[in-house]
Amino acid sequence: MFNERLLKQIEFINEVEKLKLVTRHNFVLDNHRPENSAEHSWHISLMAMILLEHKNADTIDLLRVLKMLILHDLVEIYAGDTWLYDEAGAASQYERELDAAQQLFSRLPADQATEFMALWQEFEAKDSDEATFAASIDALQPLLNRWITSPPPQEGIEPPTTQQVITKKKHIAQGSEELWQYAQEIISKSTAAGFYTE
Amino acid sequence: MFNERLLKQIEFINEVEKLKLVTRHNFVLDNHRPENSAEHSWHISLMAMILLEHKNADTIDLLRVLKMLILHDLVEIYAGDTWLYDEAGAASQYERELDAAQQLFSRLPADQATEFMALWQEFEAKDSDEATFAASIDALQPLLNRWITSPPPQEGIEPPTTQQVITKKKHIAQGSEELWQYAQEIISKSTAAGFYTE
Repeated sequence: MFNERLLKQIEFINEVEKLKLVTRHNFVLDNHRPENSAEHSWHISLMAMILLEHKNADTIDLLRVLKMLILHDLVEIYAGDTWLYDEAGAASQYERELDAAQQLFSRLPADQATEFMALWQEFEAKDSDEATFAASIDALQPLLNRWITSPPPQEGIEPPTTQQVITKKKHIAQGSEELWQYAQEIISKSTAAGFYTE
Repeated sequence: MFNERLLKQIEFINEVEKLKLVTRHNFVLDNHRPENSAEHSWHISLMAMILLEHKNADTIDLLRVLKMLILHDLVEIYAGDTWLYDEAGAASQYERELDAAQQLFSRLPADQATEFMALWQEFEAKDSDEATFAASIDALQPLLNRWITSPPPQEGIEPPTTQQVITKKKHIAQGSEELWQYAQEIISKSTAAGFYTE
């Protein structure tokens, strides 16, 4: 009764329901549970709409930015969330996520699988003005979240040093010098509050 | 040091962190917690990207659809989520949400406040091809979610009748006849499974 494309698309949409169960190292406001990658993806999409004017590039295609931000974390459904400061996890991250992308996106009709893979790879490689800006927003959100939720120290988790945070976040400047200036302010305040070690 | 626009935008972004705490009547897959409006907003944004070809209209501006879907539930931060089948809540819903929209969006720089209010009102009024399609997607997602999560009956909550579901969801046909055909199939299966009463 229904065409095969629609049925494949619906199955994909049902499969990605799982992103709501992928937890991150950040928390929601009342600190009773970790933030998940689905709500993070929503938050950065809204941020991109609001902060677009601060981009370095003269023109940026906001639709492509939003598409990247909406789909960039889907790979975590199979590969899990790799904490930014987990150096061991980082070593295998790209390979694990590429496997996951191939496995997941191939559930879509072929043309959409190709589009999703291209957008994900462009985002990962920061290979365009849209991708560098999207990556800036994705990197800024956890800094803001960390600052306003002030979660208590987590057992067995060593907080990053300020220098580690700066090293991992300085690519924000590629997408937006202005947002990187602001991010450094938040990193300083967070260090003073003891969230990062000096 | 930072311009006033940026500071207002960041304060808004911090304020809307609260959407992750607004719970809905649907559940996530493992049923240990209700779905929240932030992750719902992410899911429908991704759905719109994937299901665009099923629109009734010849052409649709996907960027405007995504903007509406990303921001449409922000009003719930102040007005709460009103369950679709709560007729008492529905009577005051628009007024409460309009108040909330004015209160929330006025925290943005004036031009962005105006844009957000216009997009939200267009979505609520289903006042364009973009708005009717966005509303179709927003109405379809809970039907899919209900079907695949199969949450146990909730104490004190009377499930809707199949006719109530059809009445509330038939506007899906305005945005997409094809998605409405599919939605009716899910509603039938969900009725047979006892999720809705006959």
